[in-house]
Amino acid sequence: MTTCSLLTGKEDDFGGVIVRFTNQMESNVFASLLRASMAQWKLQGKKGVWLEIPIECVNLVEAAVKEGFYYHHAEPKYLMLVHWIPETNSTLPANATHRVGIGAFVLNKEGQVLVVQEKSGKFRGTGIWKFPTGVVEQGEDICDAAVREVKEETGIITEFKEILAFRQSHKAFFQKSDLFFVCMLEPLSFDIQKQDLEIEAAEWMPFEEYAAQPYVEKHELLKYLVDICLAKKERKYTGFTPVPTTSTFSSEKHFLYLNGRDLSSL
Amino acid sequence: MTTCSLLTGKEDDFGGVIVRFTNQMESNVFASLLRASMAQWKLQGKKGVWLEIPIECVNLVEAAVKEGFYYHHAEPKYLMLVHWIPETNSTLPANATHRVGIGAFVLNKEGQVLVVQEKSGKFRGTGIWKFPTGVVEQGEDICDAAVREVKEETGIITEFKEILAFRQSHKAFFQKSDLFFVCMLEPLSFDIQKQDLEIEAAEWMPFEEYAAQPYVEKHELLKYLVDICLAKKERKYTGFTPVPTTSTFSSEKHFLYLNGRDLSSL
Repeated sequence: MTTCSLLTGKEDDFGGVIVRFTNQMESNVFASLLRASMAQWKLQGKKGVWLEIPIECVNLVEAAVKEGFYYHHAEPKYLMLVHWIPETNSTLPANATHRVGIGAFVLNKEGQVLVVQEKSGKFRGTGIWKFPTGVVEQGEDICDAAVREVKEETGIITEFKEILAFRQSHKAFFQKSDLFFVCMLEPLSFDIQKQDLEIEAAEWMPFEEYAAQPYVEKHELLKYLVDICLAKKERKYTGFTPVPTTSTFSSEKHFLYLNGRDLSSL
Repeated sequence: MTTCSLLTGKEDDFGGVIVRFTNQMESNVFASLLRASMAQWKLQGKKGVWLEIPIECVNLVEAAVKEGFYYHHAEPKYLMLVHWIPETNSTLPANATHRVGIGAFVLNKEGQVLVVQEKSGKFRGTGIWKFPTGVVEQGEDICDAAVREVKEETGIITEFKEILAFRQSHKAFFQKSDLFFVCMLEPLSFDIQKQDLEIEAAEWMPFEEYAAQPYVEKHELLKYLVDICLAKKERKYTGFTPVPTTSTFSSEKHFLYLNGRDLSSL
């Protein structure tokens, strides 16, 4: 066996090895390379072996599965497969389980709340006014996502203030879960420029009018959120504010969300 | 074309169709079935077409990609591919982006906190005492995960009280993000039975001793958490408590986490 008959992997911090494919190859060539490499990694006492296969190299997937690999996760342009070599229980990291969404409570000084009607989805054509909502993108901070979604849907520029509450739900899409953060934002502009693709209508509405919608009154979750927003409006409620901190694992800044009022009163 | 020459799909609520494979078939048979079915779905004005391919049918993946499908997500035993038919922008749901973890602050009536030393990972052999931590499993509530992890690692039975704070970090594993919830739990038992596989040692430690560890003092995030726990210990801090609510989308109960003290004081 010569060195060129093995796959080139990079060692990870957990005694494993990761192989990233950049060039296409024949699947039978790949199969024998993989078999020889696996034998070598076993001898070396490697634990998890990862194969990151770009969608252009989809012809290699079947051979990897036949060698005992299974799927770990996938993104549009690649598939990650993994094989745990040791006899002991796998300590491989779990796949992502949650999608994260935001709802934005934007209250102006006249006591009006920013609401929208959506063009698609379950609220289409219902006439129901709701807070701007959206999905937090990969790598995006929750507080940034809230500001971005409000700007995209209504043109309103805002400053993030607080997370008022959040809800965890399961089987939101396929078998995955959802974390929905209700955020309070302060408007820095007032002239609504609605986005035409998704938004049917957008306006500033007296909070009482929003809360009095039959749909809102009928749903336990929305009624709680109305109570929270009302308490916030009357300055009787404190949520979590973001504080930038360095993590224990890297020097990058990450947001820690905490009850800043209670902490600063110490 | 007869009806048996088309794939059998199930319509979804968004004008799309989902095909779940249960039987193996030859990849060339699949390729022509898929081509004929796609033509039909286009005529019918379908939007998203989903293919859920179990790992046993991995031989079909290459044909699907050649027909213009790309990966949406994967779990160990299946791969989900998708194709967006319309010319307009895709409104397909995003893949899960976050893993969710918990850290457990368990304080007994003597002012001692439950701490562990881990057998593996970055803290192995460092002598550092830390709160029990763990990953929230698919479909699991955050509050249940905290109780489960404490029980698994230390044998201590607890009651969930509050989420004190949470941290969002990015690129925690591959390109995915992490949400880490610091939870307060009340111990209902006191006799530690540590789990041998992952836990080197577990004990009740005076909170001040935990907080005085150089590692804790050195890290901004942990220092914040110490301040929060100390404020909580002195009953000067309120986090978020879980309230079961029915969702707007289903009759199932989901937990809404909110500042219950501020809301009940209304």
